[in-house]
Amino acid sequence: MRYDYDVLFVPEFKKALENVMSSEKCVFLIDKNIWEKYNLMKIIPINEFPVTLVEAVESNKTIYGVIDIWKQWEAANVTKKHKVIVIGGGIVQDLGAFASSAYLRNIEWFFLPTTLLAQCDSCIGSKCGINLNSFKNQLGAFYAPKRIFIDIGFLETLTEADFYSGMGEIFKASLTSDKLFFHQFRKMILDRKERANLEDLIYRSLMVKKAVVEADEFEKDYRRVLNFGHTFGHALEAYSNNEIPHGAAVTLGVDIASYIAWKKGFIFEKEYQEIKEVAHYLYRFKFPKDVDIERLFHFMRKDKKSEGNSINFVIPKQLGKLQIYPMQLDENLIRLLENYFCENYAVYRN
Amino acid sequence: MRYDYDVLFVPEFKKALENVMSSEKCVFLIDKNIWEKYNLMKIIPINEFPVTLVEAVESNKTIYGVIDIWKQWEAANVTKKHKVIVIGGGIVQDLGAFASSAYLRNIEWFFLPTTLLAQCDSCIGSKCGINLNSFKNQLGAFYAPKRIFIDIGFLETLTEADFYSGMGEIFKASLTSDKLFFHQFRKMILDRKERANLEDLIYRSLMVKKAVVEADEFEKDYRRVLNFGHTFGHALEAYSNNEIPHGAAVTLGVDIASYIAWKKGFIFEKEYQEIKEVAHYLYRFKFPKDVDIERLFHFMRKDKKSEGNSINFVIPKQLGKLQIYPMQLDENLIRLLENYFCENYAVYRN
Repeated sequence: MRYDYDVLFVPEFKKALENVMSSEKCVFLIDKNIWEKYNLMKIIPINEFPVTLVEAVESNKTIYGVIDIWKQWEAANVTKKHKVIVIGGGIVQDLGAFASSAYLRNIEWFFLPTTLLAQCDSCIGSKCGINLNSFKNQLGAFYAPKRIFIDIGFLETLTEADFYSGMGEIFKASLTSDKLFFHQFRKMILDRKERANLEDLIYRSLMVKKAVVEADEFEKDYRRVLNFGHTFGHALEAYSNNEIPHGAAVTLGVDIASYIAWKKGFIFEKEYQEIKEVAHYLYRFKFPKDVDIERLFHFMRKDKKSEGNSINFVIPKQLGKLQIYPMQLDENLIRLLENYFCENYAVYRN
Repeated sequence: MRYDYDVLFVPEFKKALENVMSSEKCVFLIDKNIWEKYNLMKIIPINEFPVTLVEAVESNKTIYGVIDIWKQWEAANVTKKHKVIVIGGGIVQDLGAFASSAYLRNIEWFFLPTTLLAQCDSCIGSKCGINLNSFKNQLGAFYAPKRIFIDIGFLETLTEADFYSGMGEIFKASLTSDKLFFHQFRKMILDRKERANLEDLIYRSLMVKKAVVEADEFEKDYRRVLNFGHTFGHALEAYSNNEIPHGAAVTLGVDIASYIAWKKGFIFEKEYQEIKEVAHYLYRFKFPKDVDIERLFHFMRKDKKSEGNSINFVIPKQLGKLQIYPMQLDENLIRLLENYFCENYAVYRN
């Protein structure tokens, strides 16, 4: 199978790197901040291995950014025998995956995710997205890393905001497989034990995603459940001009989708309150006020999964079980969302 | 399976196009010459379907050419529901395949090959190549068209040179599967019946390739036999500054590889003479004189399959059966090739 890969939890990523460098021809693509923060110059001999540093900002995640990487690889005579070692978060991952997928028709890559979002979610699933013009992820590929090394030590230096944003995807995963994961996750949150159980949470989150992805590698239908929280999430990200980061937007998206499921009678009020309780704890940003729902719809219509004015939302069918739920972007939905934002503004405002 | 596809021989491509347009949302990518020569304006309503015309020259087959296509698709709001209809030869195919492979992470494409080379060989196999800088096909993808419509009517207007260049790949295929195909092909050539049997030859050539490709979709080892004639072929193309077109270079490449097989004792002299007889008939260009073998090696070393100074050639193991045959680019090979070019100059000169 083309997309098989290993996920390895490693206690010390520098050791793992040294092992890889001793056995493989490597070419590195690294987040500039990580390069500096971890003083990687000390362990990666740049005269021996080509190193490309990138600033992990959305505006660099374009086809032109990828072309820069390709040109550096060509200049360094990178061959099919090389392994591309990518160290960073989602943006660097997207650049590395796309660049690797097309270079010499594909070249293998290894990934060391450095953010919680990348560790608990994006590192598997094989999708990557690259921007062309203004439209996010207009280009992309399905191209998984051959090996993934997860060192949760990277997470110690994350800001609170980044950390709890990353938890948004674990939150989503906890509601994707069964009730048990959600109940356990909620208990950890209530007991403030989420940091103590991080490796376990990341592992379980990845297992949930793996199960979905393997059932549907090329995204026909089932894989759509991974979009739980993402249709609203992406729209909120865009609506806020990316002031609400991805994971936090997903947290709200999960809350909204669950609110709809409650209002439509798929889950009980008590269950929705439990979900909201977790969402409220995880969400660390300003809650959007006076949301212009029509403008939010505008961003939703741009979603790859939209079909005209109808969108396939993912909402709970019952607690811990998801369904695809097509809805019209119409007056009914506007009212539902206005109520949501109105009711929750008071709850979320921090 | 992601790479399943249909190959349909159609008596009249315009009818096939009309059928497709009546049932699918289409976006067209078409060789400018074909657009004009066949007056396609008359049957494709450009106010209804976005049409991109490309000049089919190697210098347009770059990542920047692909970006132009993507921008046009984005401007025309091309979605996952669209089918990209590609009409042209190998260059337009490469552009269309690569552009389709990454747009919205992939969008389906249909292909109407218009050259013999594309009809008998490149249309299946799922590989495409795009140029970055000077190095040919530095970028690429494995991404097959969903449907292929072959109308041999397109071939009637080919020049003799293009026609016999295209036959080079059929020649290659005839030596790839078994003795029988080669003997029958040779008989057609001797009887000058190759044009009368074109559809049959294209079909058999595609079946040979299909069998190899399906045995090895992602090019591990077995697929390498498709490189028969191509290591020398590509080098000769580059050496001649593309004055020798691809198929003709492959014809010579097949001849050279067979010459080596004879000299190494894998095939009999009589068999090699039969192969050369066909090559000689198909090759319609100036035979290169005073070839600087070291310069030829320079281009071979750039081959994706080279490993330092060693190259995995594909040569006959016996008539109709191929093998991977690693050789050093050394004095021995230089002498062998000097003899080949010297002996054959008198034979080929036309």
